[in-house]
Amino acid sequence: MTNDIMARREAVLGPNVPTFYKNPVHLIRGEGVWAWDAAGNKYLDCYNNVPHVGHCHPHVVAAIANQASILNTHTRYLHDGIINYAERLTAKFQPQLDQVIMVCSGSEANDIALRMAQAMTGKTGLISTDNTYHGNTMAVSQLSSRKPPIGGYAANIRHVPAPDTLRPVGGTADGQAQAFAREIQTKIDDLEASGHGFSGFLFCPTFANEGLPDLPKDFMLPAAKVIHAAGGILISDEVQPGFGRTGDTWWGHDWLGLSPDVVTLGKPMANGHPVAAVVAKSEVMAAFRNAFGYFNTFGGNPVSCAAAAATLDVIEQDNLIENAKEVGAEFLHSLYSINHTSIANIRGRGLFIALELETDGVADEALAAHVVEYARNNGMLMGRTGRKRNVLKLRPPMPFSASNAIVASDIMARAFKATKV
Amino acid sequence: MTNDIMARREAVLGPNVPTFYKNPVHLIRGEGVWAWDAAGNKYLDCYNNVPHVGHCHPHVVAAIANQASILNTHTRYLHDGIINYAERLTAKFQPQLDQVIMVCSGSEANDIALRMAQAMTGKTGLISTDNTYHGNTMAVSQLSSRKPPIGGYAANIRHVPAPDTLRPVGGTADGQAQAFAREIQTKIDDLEASGHGFSGFLFCPTFANEGLPDLPKDFMLPAAKVIHAAGGILISDEVQPGFGRTGDTWWGHDWLGLSPDVVTLGKPMANGHPVAAVVAKSEVMAAFRNAFGYFNTFGGNPVSCAAAAATLDVIEQDNLIENAKEVGAEFLHSLYSINHTSIANIRGRGLFIALELETDGVADEALAAHVVEYARNNGMLMGRTGRKRNVLKLRPPMPFSASNAIVASDIMARAFKATKV
Repeated sequence: MTNDIMARREAVLGPNVPTFYKNPVHLIRGEGVWAWDAAGNKYLDCYNNVPHVGHCHPHVVAAIANQASILNTHTRYLHDGIINYAERLTAKFQPQLDQVIMVCSGSEANDIALRMAQAMTGKTGLISTDNTYHGNTMAVSQLSSRKPPIGGYAANIRHVPAPDTLRPVGGTADGQAQAFAREIQTKIDDLEASGHGFSGFLFCPTFANEGLPDLPKDFMLPAAKVIHAAGGILISDEVQPGFGRTGDTWWGHDWLGLSPDVVTLGKPMANGHPVAAVVAKSEVMAAFRNAFGYFNTFGGNPVSCAAAAATLDVIEQDNLIENAKEVGAEFLHSLYSINHTSIANIRGRGLFIALELETDGVADEALAAHVVEYARNNGMLMGRTGRKRNVLKLRPPMPFSASNAIVASDIMARAFKATKV
Repeated sequence: MTNDIMARREAVLGPNVPTFYKNPVHLIRGEGVWAWDAAGNKYLDCYNNVPHVGHCHPHVVAAIANQASILNTHTRYLHDGIINYAERLTAKFQPQLDQVIMVCSGSEANDIALRMAQAMTGKTGLISTDNTYHGNTMAVSQLSSRKPPIGGYAANIRHVPAPDTLRPVGGTADGQAQAFAREIQTKIDDLEASGHGFSGFLFCPTFANEGLPDLPKDFMLPAAKVIHAAGGILISDEVQPGFGRTGDTWWGHDWLGLSPDVVTLGKPMANGHPVAAVVAKSEVMAAFRNAFGYFNTFGGNPVSCAAAAATLDVIEQDNLIENAKEVGAEFLHSLYSINHTSIANIRGRGLFIALELETDGVADEALAAHVVEYARNNGMLMGRTGRKRNVLKLRPPMPFSASNAIVASDIMARAFKATKV
C-alpha cells in the first residue's frame, strides 16, 4: 500500500517532495504524544513540535470547531478574537515588544521581519548564520543556507559561521561569543562598504537548525551589541524555541537576556492550525506599516485566533513550560547513561535535546541515520540536524512525560546497541 | 464599544491596519450569505469570496472538526488526504496541469510561481499589469502596483498598462487585445536587452484588481502568443476567479481559452481555512522542485486537505457554478434597471459584477464611496476597486440566490437615489 501511495504521491505532487525515513511513515491518527500508522503501529512522537500541546488536543480542536461554526472572516472587519489574543500574547513579551501582525506561516512572518529591518533602517543588507533555515519565500530563502535560493544569493546577503559546540567559532568555547560578534562586525562593515548598508540580523535563539549548540546564557550579548551599535535590527526567530519549548522562559531571547526589535513566531503557535506572527516594537511596526499596505487575508482570522488562544490556555493550565523543564532534565539524564563511543556530546534545554555523533573525531552521519531508522522501526519518531546531519534531534510535544522519556531513552539505547558502527 | 475596540486594535496591531467603511463593521456571526454585527444588525454579504460556499458551511466545518480530532501533521509523513485531494483538484484542470504544491496563502503560491518561471527559464525578468495586486511577500509585492514594494521596484520588473473597459489600451475596444500584446512584447524586448531576460507573466484572468474589465473571450490569445514565443511562463492567478466564481468554467483561464504553465489558487479554496496551492505542468514543477528544496510545514496538512475537499464537495453537490451563472445573470439584469447618470458601465460574469461610476466623464470615487457606505448602513456588504476606486465590486458567496440579488439591487437602487452627487 505504501508503494502505491508513494507512486500516486510522486505523480500528483512531483519529484523531490521530502519524506522522512527509508520507509516513509503513513500516519493516520494522533493523540497526545502518540501517533499511529496505517498498519496499526504505534509511535512515541519525539520529533513533532507543531502539535505543541499534543496531537489533536481536545481543547484546541473544540475551539477551532466552535469558532469555525460561528464566523471566519478577515481583519478588515473588527473582531474581538485578534485583539484579545494579541493583547494576551504581547503580555508575555518584554514591554517594548507590544505590537503584532498575524500571518499564516513562519515564512510569511520572517518575510515581513526582513522588510521591517529595511523599512526601519532604509538599508537592505541582511545577515544570518551559514548553516540555517528560516523559511521558504523567495526573500527568506536568501538567508537560508540549508535551502539556497534559486539563482543564487543576492548581493545584499551575508552569512557568518554558525556557533558550534565541538568546533567553536574562533577555536575555543570560551572565546566563541566574542569571535561570533567579530564575524558579524566584519560582515556589517562589508555591507556598509558595499553600499547596501546593514539593516538586520536574523537568528534562532537556540540555533536549532545549526545543531542546537550548547551555549552560555550570555552568548549573544556581544553580537547584539555590535548589531545595535551599527543601527541594525535584531530579529529573533522563535519558530522553534518559542512557547516554552526550552522549559525556562516563553521565548529563547529572554533566556539569552536579549532585547530584540522584532520576534517571529510560527509552527507551535496554534498546535498545527496555519498561524504565525510577527511581534515588534511599535516604532518598527510603524515603519513597516507606513512603508507597505500590508493585509493578509487569512492572517488573524477568528478561527486562527481561537486556535492560538486555546493553545495558550493549555500551555498555561497544564504547566507545560514547567513540564518541559522537569521532563527535559530527566530525559537528558537518561540519555547520559547510554554508553556508546560515538556519542560525542549530549545537550539540550527543556524538551529540545541533541546528541552529536562522531566516530574517530569525524561526524558520523551514518550512525545518526541508523539510530533514527531503528527508532522508526521500533515505535519512536525522531529526527536529525546539524551541518553534517550527524546530530540526533529530540523535540517532542510538550505534554511529554517522565515515563515517555524512559521509553524513548530505552529505544535509543537499544538503537546504539544494535549497531556495530 | 466600536471606539474602544478601535483604540485597543491600534494599540496592539499598530497603525495603518486596514478596515472597511468609515464606521468599521464589528462582525460576530456568519451563516450562508448573511453576517451579523455586535449590535445585532444583519448584513447581506455581497463582498466576501473567501467563504466561497457560504459563511460557516456545516459540511466544511464538520470536515475541519473531524480531521482536527483525528490527525494534523505535515507532508513528510504520508497521508491519503493530500493525495486524494490533489488528484481530485488536478482532474478539474487541462490535462497538462497535473501537479500540485499546497501552501497556506495566495501570496505563498504566487511567490512559488515566480520562482517556477525563473527556475524553468534560467532568467529573472517578470511582467504584470500596472494596476494589480498579487500578494504580500517581498517578492510578490514587486508585481503589485497597488501595494508597491518597500525600497521600490527591482530592476527585473516591468508593468504593462492594464486592460480597461472605458479607456482601452491602444485607444479602441476592438484593438485592445493586440495593443495589450504589443505592450507585453515591448517589455519582453526591454527585459531581454537589459540582461535580466524574460521569465514569466503573472495575471488574473478576470483582471479583478484592475477593475474587472469587460473583455472578449479571445482577449488574451495574442498576449499568450508573444509570451510563449519568447519562452516565457504564463502564470494564471486564479485566487479571485477560481472555483467557478464566474459561473461558466472552474477557472478563468479556461474561459479565455488559454493554456497556462502555472496556476495559483487561494482565498476560496477551503472556505476560509488558510489553504492555497500552485498547480503546474510537470516539467515546470520538476524545474522548481529540483532547484529548491521546498517544504511547507502547514501546507497540505490533513486538516487543510479535508477543508479543501469539503469545499469541492459543496461546489459540486449544490451546483454552485451553475447557480453563479444563473443568479449572476439575474443580478446583472436587476442592476441594469438602476437609473443614474453616473453609472458609466455595468459588467460581470457569474457572481463577479462591477459597476463603473463616472460623472461628466471623470471617475467618481466619491459616489462609489457613498454607495458602499449607504449599503453598509442598510444591511449590505460590498466593496470597490479599479484604478480610481470608482468601480463598485459585487462578489458574494456562491450560494447567493435570485431573491438575494433582488434585495441587493434594491439597496443599491436606493443608494443611488439617496445621492444628489
